[in-house]
Amino acid sequence: MATKFDDADAPYGADEGLPWLPFSPHSELVSVKLYAADPARGEVVLLLRAAPGVEMPPHRSTGPTTIYTLQGRWKYREHDWVAGPGSVVLEPAGVRHTPLVLADGTDDTILFVVTVGNLQLLDADGEVIGTEDWRSAVERYLAYCRDNGITPRDLTQSSGSPSPDRLGLAT
Amino acid sequence: MATKFDDADAPYGADEGLPWLPFSPHSELVSVKLYAADPARGEVVLLLRAAPGVEMPPHRSTGPTTIYTLQGRWKYREHDWVAGPGSVVLEPAGVRHTPLVLADGTDDTILFVVTVGNLQLLDADGEVIGTEDWRSAVERYLAYCRDNGITPRDLTQSSGSPSPDRLGLAT
Amino acid sequence: MATKFDDADAPYGADEGLPWLPFSPHSELVSVKLYAADPARGEVVLLLRAAPGVEMPPHRSTGPTTIYTLQGRWKYREHDWVAGPGSVVLEPAGVRHTPLVLADGTDDTILFVVTVGNLQLLDADGEVIGTEDWRSAVERYLAYCRDNGITPRDLTQSSGSPSPDRLGLAT
Amino acid sequence: MATKFDDADAPYGADEGLPWLPFSPHSELVSVKLYAADPARGEVVLLLRAAPGVEMPPHRSTGPTTIYTLQGRWKYREHDWVAGPGSVVLEPAGVRHTPLVLADGTDDTILFVVTVGNLQLLDADGEVIGTEDWRSAVERYLAYCRDNGITPRDLTQSSGSPSPDRLGLAT
Repeated sequence: MATKFDDADAPYGADEGLPWLPFSPHSELVSVKLYAADPARGEVVLLLRAAPGVEMPPHRSTGPTTIYTLQGRWKYREHDWVAGPGSVVLEPAGVRHTPLVLADGTDDTILFVVTVGNLQLLDADGEVIGTEDWRSAVERYLAYCRDNGITPRDLTQSSGSPSPDRLGLAT
Repeated sequence: MATKFDDADAPYGADEGLPWLPFSPHSELVSVKLYAADPARGEVVLLLRAAPGVEMPPHRSTGPTTIYTLQGRWKYREHDWVAGPGSVVLEPAGVRHTPLVLADGTDDTILFVVTVGNLQLLDADGEVIGTEDWRSAVERYLAYCRDNGITPRDLTQSSGSPSPDRLGLAT
Repeated sequence: MATKFDDADAPYGADEGLPWLPFSPHSELVSVKLYAADPARGEVVLLLRAAPGVEMPPHRSTGPTTIYTLQGRWKYREHDWVAGPGSVVLEPAGVRHTPLVLADGTDDTILFVVTVGNLQLLDADGEVIGTEDWRSAVERYLAYCRDNGITPRDLTQSSGSPSPDRLGLAT
Repeated sequence: MATKFDDADAPYGADEGLPWLPFSPHSELVSVKLYAADPARGEVVLLLRAAPGVEMPPHRSTGPTTIYTLQGRWKYREHDWVAGPGSVVLEPAGVRHTPLVLADGTDDTILFVVTVGNLQLLDADGEVIGTEDWRSAVERYLAYCRDNGITPRDLTQSSGSPSPDRLGLAT
């Protein structure tokens, strides 16, 4: 049974035109490409890129995180395993990690990341020294667009709510 | 088509035996009853109870929150609406609120809350002065049980993963 | 650190004006009060009401479901436990149940339900004989409003995306 | 503030040893590599692979779906856009699509997919002619392992619940 909603657009965020953003102020050696940020759920979808040998600050995500490794080899200091291309890491909420890109490669490590909630950057004592969330992700993107003369997209609209008139509310 | 998984138990967390826990150190005028805490997703399911006239600290949830008001009348200082019995509040991630239980009632306000991620308690400048999450919720429950001679349940097992042998992995 | 998004409205769906809808065509003895339907995630938030002795059709939810019992006593035929006021049931995705309201009470059973995905109504062989989802929930609400001269609300907008100009995209 | 849970293992599902599974009985021209299936939430994480020119059956996912295109070019018959390497598609729940791998390439299309709930395969009238979910995904994997002498992993344990003794419940 087809419904009258079946013509809803699948939201689509293409790669073209989405820039790599320096992950300032946390690390100039890391960059991110933001695809989508969902204000309702606090979900962020992005690529993360870092060169061989880069160690990122310890952090904790307040919600669950799914990571697909596109390229490169990396690990968390706290664990023995090494993630390489084609591997998937599923992280429970709130676990502290220190990501480390292995120095033995020549390719940058590139990760596709879907995460919910806040990313808390921690110092050696575990104190929160910085926080990232969907807002800061969008603000970083908008600032970059402004500084580089790029017309920004609305990356927060990607979750595809049907318009009121499609719901029959308009009439 | 029935599957062989159809006999899986629906997890069930009854009310009996679950205690009201003082929401220390944040507010002795507020108590919570924890039903479930999901380590994987960071979801917490609880009741929250406060007397008429109580104002809670400003806070921000890092994930989405759903609130059903069972009893009492309350509002956020930042908004005009008042929530009463039978109302539902759906909160997007990361919005700052200052909950206030109206002083005109005699009943405690009791809320059924489903939330994901961290609860950040804020000072007047918006700085984070305290954090709650599934871990601190479980720790509060376990500490209360210990102090009061109650045998604790494992409230983190409520999300119901089938056992390996039911999946045919055991043989 | 307060952000410029902190003035975002918490979406609010009050009880007033939301009608009880007969759960036709599945059961005229069951009614639902729809609070919110999220087209992006497929989440539905509602109350469900049934009189003592009512047995509902067997069903399976394709996503996770959280149920708080406000009033009454009920069980699933497939399990021994009985849920009463103040109990919480957390259901994993895809488990078949046959809800039964106990006949020993005088109060209707009223449940607060948050569910994701489809509700599949099943016959005795487990074949799908009916499906409910956020669309059918909204259609039932709109049809009831139309038939009873009620101006409908847009219950799909409850997840609170900030407007483009608040994101700084408008200029 | 570090908590005693900080040593929790991040679940990790490597690529090695996970086989490509024919997507029978729906299409022998499509194969999937299952990484994880979450019985509680009904979430499935997988790769999907199809050769140039392959058209898949129309379908509808009952929950939200996130797709990252690793390789190849594809589209939905219902839309004008074409997704290529590095693009992200975020699908709302319940929208009908007919995926089509473009015939102009030489590479297989490979998609990284995170989806919640059921996948309903539809005929031309929109009737459901087949259903996939976390159970059928696990069953397909287990059957393949059995038929090919592979020792299966438990792909349902990937969401990383801490053990009871780590929670202090064991003593």
